[in-house]
Amino acid sequence: MNLIVLTPIAAVAALLFAWLQAKKVLRESEGTELMAKLAASIRSGANAYLKRQYTGVAKFFAVVFVIMMGLVFMKQMDIFVPFAFITGGFFSALSGFIGMKIATASNARTANAASHSLNKGLKVAFSAGSVMGFTVVGLGLVDMSIWFYFLKWYYRALPLAEQASKIASLMVTFGMGASMMALFARVGGGIFTKAADVGADLVGKVEAGIPEDDPRNPAVIADNVGDNVGDVAGMGADLYESYAGARLSACALAVSAGFGFEGMAVPMALSAIGIFASIIGTFFVKTNEDASQKNLLSTLRKGTYVSSAIVAIASYFLIRYAFNGENMGLFVAIIVGLLAGNLIGYFTEYYTSDTYKPTRNLASSSETGAATIIISGLSLGMYSTALPVIIVGVAVIVSYLVSGGSADFSHGLFGIGLSAVGMLSTLGITLATDAYGPVADNAGGIAEMSHMPEEVRNRTDALDSLGNTTAATGKGFAIGSAALTALALVAAYVDQCKAINPGLELNLSVMNPPVMVGVFIGAVLPFVFAAMTMDSVGKSAQSIVTEVRRQFKEIKGIMEGTGEPDYKSCVDLCTKSAQQEILAPSLMAIIVPVIVGLILGVNGVTGMLMGATVSGFILAVMMSNAGGAWDNAKKYIESGAFNGKGSDNHKAAVVGDTVGDPFKDTSGPSINILIKLLSTVSIAFASLIVNFSLNIHF
Amino acid sequence: MNLIVLTPIAAVAALLFAWLQAKKVLRESEGTELMAKLAASIRSGANAYLKRQYTGVAKFFAVVFVIMMGLVFMKQMDIFVPFAFITGGFFSALSGFIGMKIATASNARTANAASHSLNKGLKVAFSAGSVMGFTVVGLGLVDMSIWFYFLKWYYRALPLAEQASKIASLMVTFGMGASMMALFARVGGGIFTKAADVGADLVGKVEAGIPEDDPRNPAVIADNVGDNVGDVAGMGADLYESYAGARLSACALAVSAGFGFEGMAVPMALSAIGIFASIIGTFFVKTNEDASQKNLLSTLRKGTYVSSAIVAIASYFLIRYAFNGENMGLFVAIIVGLLAGNLIGYFTEYYTSDTYKPTRNLASSSETGAATIIISGLSLGMYSTALPVIIVGVAVIVSYLVSGGSADFSHGLFGIGLSAVGMLSTLGITLATDAYGPVADNAGGIAEMSHMPEEVRNRTDALDSLGNTTAATGKGFAIGSAALTALALVAAYVDQCKAINPGLELNLSVMNPPVMVGVFIGAVLPFVFAAMTMDSVGKSAQSIVTEVRRQFKEIKGIMEGTGEPDYKSCVDLCTKSAQQEILAPSLMAIIVPVIVGLILGVNGVTGMLMGATVSGFILAVMMSNAGGAWDNAKKYIESGAFNGKGSDNHKAAVVGDTVGDPFKDTSGPSINILIKLLSTVSIAFASLIVNFSLNIHF
Repeated sequence: MNLIVLTPIAAVAALLFAWLQAKKVLRESEGTELMAKLAASIRSGANAYLKRQYTGVAKFFAVVFVIMMGLVFMKQMDIFVPFAFITGGFFSALSGFIGMKIATASNARTANAASHSLNKGLKVAFSAGSVMGFTVVGLGLVDMSIWFYFLKWYYRALPLAEQASKIASLMVTFGMGASMMALFARVGGGIFTKAADVGADLVGKVEAGIPEDDPRNPAVIADNVGDNVGDVAGMGADLYESYAGARLSACALAVSAGFGFEGMAVPMALSAIGIFASIIGTFFVKTNEDASQKNLLSTLRKGTYVSSAIVAIASYFLIRYAFNGENMGLFVAIIVGLLAGNLIGYFTEYYTSDTYKPTRNLASSSETGAATIIISGLSLGMYSTALPVIIVGVAVIVSYLVSGGSADFSHGLFGIGLSAVGMLSTLGITLATDAYGPVADNAGGIAEMSHMPEEVRNRTDALDSLGNTTAATGKGFAIGSAALTALALVAAYVDQCKAINPGLELNLSVMNPPVMVGVFIGAVLPFVFAAMTMDSVGKSAQSIVTEVRRQFKEIKGIMEGTGEPDYKSCVDLCTKSAQQEILAPSLMAIIVPVIVGLILGVNGVTGMLMGATVSGFILAVMMSNAGGAWDNAKKYIESGAFNGKGSDNHKAAVVGDTVGDPFKDTSGPSINILIKLLSTVSIAFASLIVNFSLNIHF
Repeated sequence: MNLIVLTPIAAVAALLFAWLQAKKVLRESEGTELMAKLAASIRSGANAYLKRQYTGVAKFFAVVFVIMMGLVFMKQMDIFVPFAFITGGFFSALSGFIGMKIATASNARTANAASHSLNKGLKVAFSAGSVMGFTVVGLGLVDMSIWFYFLKWYYRALPLAEQASKIASLMVTFGMGASMMALFARVGGGIFTKAADVGADLVGKVEAGIPEDDPRNPAVIADNVGDNVGDVAGMGADLYESYAGARLSACALAVSAGFGFEGMAVPMALSAIGIFASIIGTFFVKTNEDASQKNLLSTLRKGTYVSSAIVAIASYFLIRYAFNGENMGLFVAIIVGLLAGNLIGYFTEYYTSDTYKPTRNLASSSETGAATIIISGLSLGMYSTALPVIIVGVAVIVSYLVSGGSADFSHGLFGIGLSAVGMLSTLGITLATDAYGPVADNAGGIAEMSHMPEEVRNRTDALDSLGNTTAATGKGFAIGSAALTALALVAAYVDQCKAINPGLELNLSVMNPPVMVGVFIGAVLPFVFAAMTMDSVGKSAQSIVTEVRRQFKEIKGIMEGTGEPDYKSCVDLCTKSAQQEILAPSLMAIIVPVIVGLILGVNGVTGMLMGATVSGFILAVMMSNAGGAWDNAKKYIESGAFNGKGSDNHKAAVVGDTVGDPFKDTSGPSINILIKLLSTVSIAFASLIVNFSLNIHF
């Protein structure tokens, strides 16, 4: 219980550390006037986008808030839930906002620093990434601390055990706001960034034959803005949500397992420990001036490994202290989570990096043209789903068994929940190494557009390519934690329903038709969702293509560099499409669980959540990895393999990369959020379902 | 009970009808000498392939037979199972063999008939299709009748109720042979046909710029052979297996529901009725000489609709008679199955035919190149999964409820099983309209290669394009029935395990970790399987590409038509690759259920089967529909839309079509078989799992 106090302390520490890192970054110079001007355009584009998005989201949240208040009025929802929905959304949005602010402030600074040395570039970019990483974890714990202590005070009159169960079952309903916001940010940002990217590439690179990040391309600023709103703001909101979901469900499962406040303290304290470990880890990210790229990578990795090791050791003492030497199996569950995250990250890299066979083989299939590179990429993506599934499967079984699941089912489920928290405990530093990527990418763009010397561009390219690797690892964590968190949320959902109506008789057998049909419906949702989001990218990209073509035709001297392209119109177009297109998938994620619940009851919803988790996990891995591999196969060819840049192989690889763009940056990562949003929506509306389901007698 | 005698009668009727149709086709002339020669090359290629495949398969079956005999010796398998494994495989192979024989005998005949009139062409092709359709259903009932009456005689000493339960639980283990053979035929044929097709297109159409089916292309005969071994022999074995699986599981569920022989009689008699109804339906497939294509389609449809109507009416009396006026809900379940099959077929057509919006929109995305047509096609495929899932979901729930599932769980499951039998009852005629397609396609090839007048080619094109539509509907049936049959097989599996060890305590809750992990593993199998089969096509196609390029380079005068291409080498290459490549996916389908069972027990296997069924169903629909839509989008552009043949749009559409080839003709349809094979393997090895599972205590 007294361990819980670590949570607000760690929250403050994280935010303080983020602030210090931000100050460090902002001390750097933005370089030449042109660089500052370009950075300012990107900044203003990103700000305009976020402003518009947040306005739209605010309206959406307002509507949902009103509906929720209606449910409160009908006594189908606790009065705190609508407010927690707002705070969850707010902090998630704030995470994204701060991350993006610092990212857009650091791109020119990174480019400028890279003009001095590779190491300086790395430092600035990594500091920017750290701001993001520690803001996310800090705000996550702030939100939780505030609510926890408020509710603890509010229910102070109840006996301790009742307090714990009341607080836990309330807090688990709080995830929906963060999930909702994350979906908006990921999907909206994903559509923006890929519409701009695909649009810029299709007309610029393929039709007009000008290089990437060429300032003559009217979509080039939109493309750079996209990296910030998608890869930074979107990812921030996304991981904020995972981080919250894992902790909230683990707390709820702790209480169902009968561990009360002592149990709840474990995931909270574990997150706190992770923050301190991550802060320590960042100090290991240093390199000497003449570091090779391989050294750079091991440098970044060292930070993560040090943090993981600290968490591993500290969690032993944590469990020992929390349970007076009992339940030591939970310590193993934490380790299993950490290991599983690292393993999935490793295999993500294996399948998507051009230093390994799969991506090299993919590049070689460009020999027979675009069609074969597409087929091979899809099949690579599909193959790559097997190992993560096995890893998650083993993690589930082992955490369940070591936590005493065979003696007490609920203990086993808590173990699974805790392993998700373990996996995400070092989020501060994994996110820092991940968020550093887009900053480096943008720095490269600015270097190119401001005609900096070749050598600078080479350095930013090295940083960027490193960023692709760390991003792959980061995605592995995001995906792995999504699966475990979603499973924990499903378990929490079932508990929640039983708490609402203790007389509720559930038949969750897969042979029970509502469960069966629920699994079918759930499994199809990620496919439909992926289709929606890919279509959105396609539609938005086509509008960009048309606009860029128009500008190439109508603006005189644009190709000679004498006419100024209208960057803003492309940014506006992307913003507008992204706004329009996020509505349908978001509505689907809210409405389907409620409809399924009203018709098929709690059994059906549970089946649906399981189906969505399983198929969503697999589809997300497939899409992310196929997309990553196509991207790197193209880069591998650009580096000179298979006839190099400009060859037919390269053209084929560009087609692959273009298909992969929405895969890896829009649909794939959004599916992770979708599966958790479905769970958090189901949890928030559990009372409605339990009390008003048609209850067809199955 | 006495209804069962309808089964052998219908079997004989079906085979007789097929024989009459075959005689009718063989009476036609093969046309000019060149046509006969081309047909002979195709025939000999197809024969060579089948010979090689059957030799390979025989070895595989021999190994499995020996392993099974080992299990028999260990008392973990009934002595009849290994033999039934062989007969199932044999009849499935025979279905494919006869279908292919008649198909390769009818292609030149159809081309020749089409040179007289469209209607004559239709008649010959449809008769050839009928041979295939009625052979499959006839042999299916022959196998079942023989075993049924043999076992009935063998167990004659037992009381009736025990006889029924013994026979039903034995017969449900018999599906594995047919499933295994179907997988070999579908995957092998699919790899062959698409390797040849993709190879021929990539070098011929794209690189050399010669038209499809041009005799100068060395891969052209292999391509035509492929249509026969893939679309005909493969499909025959495939649907033989669905037809068997649906009936066998329904019989087993009838007995578990306590209906004894009276219950078993229902699916058997229903299949028999379906055969008579299908024979009657074929007489409605007539058209006048000046029929438009639309008329042709409605003509073909009329046959199916008449048969369905007859089955619908007759099944009312069947149920009434079988249960003395009780359990009339089962009649509704049959109707639900029939309706669901037709609806899925309709939506398959909606998503893949160029007369509807989705495929037209897909064609329009060729405006921005290959990448966007790929993205749009994938998203079309993903969207198209939603309605089939809803239809299957509704069918499951309704058949369950109307059959009295709320009062007695096992009655509900029998209802689900029976609706699968209902869906497939008219297989004779649906398969005839489906198998007619590849015959028409090949006739077109022969018309082209033998330089018949434009007008003839137009007629065969009209027949072919009609074939694409009916194939879409047929695929809808194959997919819908696969889902329902697989669900019924899972239910039968659980019953089987309980029968083996009545003390077995199962916890099939989706929250039980082995089930959870089982669902994950099962869901990933179709993805890995699809990856394997796509890769196989890719690898095999690359070898064809290399070979065709070599011939273009080395054989003098090949382009001028003075040098003869070496067709045989391409056929050999395809045969060899197909043989090599089928091994890994087939082994996976046998080994994984056993390993999962030994580690995670019956709970884990049940979860695995459910996961595989759900994700396999969705992936199969997605791949088949995306592939079909790409194909038709390309044809739509070739017909003049979006700048027509040879334009950049067309080139983009060809990339889409090439990607779609393995989707729709290799991986997609094979997944349907995979999900049933997993179930039949699990059922056959149930005793091993029940008795030897590690039984980690969950």
